[in-house]
Amino acid sequence: MLYVVGVGVCKGHLTRKAIELIKNADVVYGSKRALKLAEDYIVCEKRVMKYSDDEYRRIEKESKDKNVVILSTGDPMVSGLGTKFNGSIEPGISSVQVALVKLGVDLCDVVVVDAHAKKPENLNELLRFRHLLILADRKFDISIFGDRGVYLMENLCMENEKVVCDKAVGLEVRSDYTIVFVRR
Amino acid sequence: MLYVVGVGVCKGHLTRKAIELIKNADVVYGSKRALKLAEDYIVCEKRVMKYSDDEYRRIEKESKDKNVVILSTGDPMVSGLGTKFNGSIEPGISSVQVALVKLGVDLCDVVVVDAHAKKPENLNELLRFRHLLILADRKFDISIFGDRGVYLMENLCMENEKVVCDKAVGLEVRSDYTIVFVRR
Repeated sequence: MLYVVGVGVCKGHLTRKAIELIKNADVVYGSKRALKLAEDYIVCEKRVMKYSDDEYRRIEKESKDKNVVILSTGDPMVSGLGTKFNGSIEPGISSVQVALVKLGVDLCDVVVVDAHAKKPENLNELLRFRHLLILADRKFDISIFGDRGVYLMENLCMENEKVVCDKAVGLEVRSDYTIVFVRR
Repeated sequence: MLYVVGVGVCKGHLTRKAIELIKNADVVYGSKRALKLAEDYIVCEKRVMKYSDDEYRRIEKESKDKNVVILSTGDPMVSGLGTKFNGSIEPGISSVQVALVKLGVDLCDVVVVDAHAKKPENLNELLRFRHLLILADRKFDISIFGDRGVYLMENLCMENEKVVCDKAVGLEVRSDYTIVFVRR
């Protein structure tokens, strides 16, 4: 069996179900960060994952006679690995949820935008209806929001976490783990 | 201290952090469903909560000299109690996440709409950009989507869970725990 398991973003985010799946695995794959978040519960071989479709198909084959767990930082269905694999998906706490707590804003009042390695479309149109919560990397050009005040949340739950609120035009995205919040 | 703690929607969704907060509480408030989901870890007095602003303010006062935990089914920041209290918020797995797993759809491709006890606006405009994931109750008129195919997901993770996919016009929302998915 193949399980894609969300490990959350902060220490203590693992769910009972996720821990059970990790403990029962024959092999666990993940990024270094995901393996670190789950390390207390991995009692089998762990492997740093390569992110390519060929590797995903190879792992699916491997799972035919083994319990394979793929760790996904945050939640597998939030710009995550959940749509890449044919397997069972176990949710986890995403950085979106951590950001909404910091902002005091409900998910039903935002649109979550994936701007990792892609240029998102229709941002101005979406801003007419909702606040924007943008998952951004260093290539994201935050100056498109000009004089608007935005929140820049970098490396949430990591030791170099940083949250600033300022006019977009003076800011720069310096981490590939950044969330940008723009109020409607 | 006052903590609003997400308990998830399925058995096994509680996080390590949530369990720790519940175990350390002096009193735990929640709906019957939330108290049931957390029951294995409640070692203090538990009280079924009344949902009113007066009661929220009274509980805030009570928390000045006690550890008070308010359980929130799902995630406190998803049409939840997180924005009602002045306290520390701990995320949980929401029904939105469970629905996205069933659908195989990423959060960054949808807009989450709260239609609990309110009539949501701009649905047709939002559908131009994103799929819709609507948190609905029995008062929600699903027939507004006419001949469109929709997913109706009722009572996710409860014993009477039901998922149907059909034309909207023939369907009816029969549970106050319903998620409606409309493809863009």
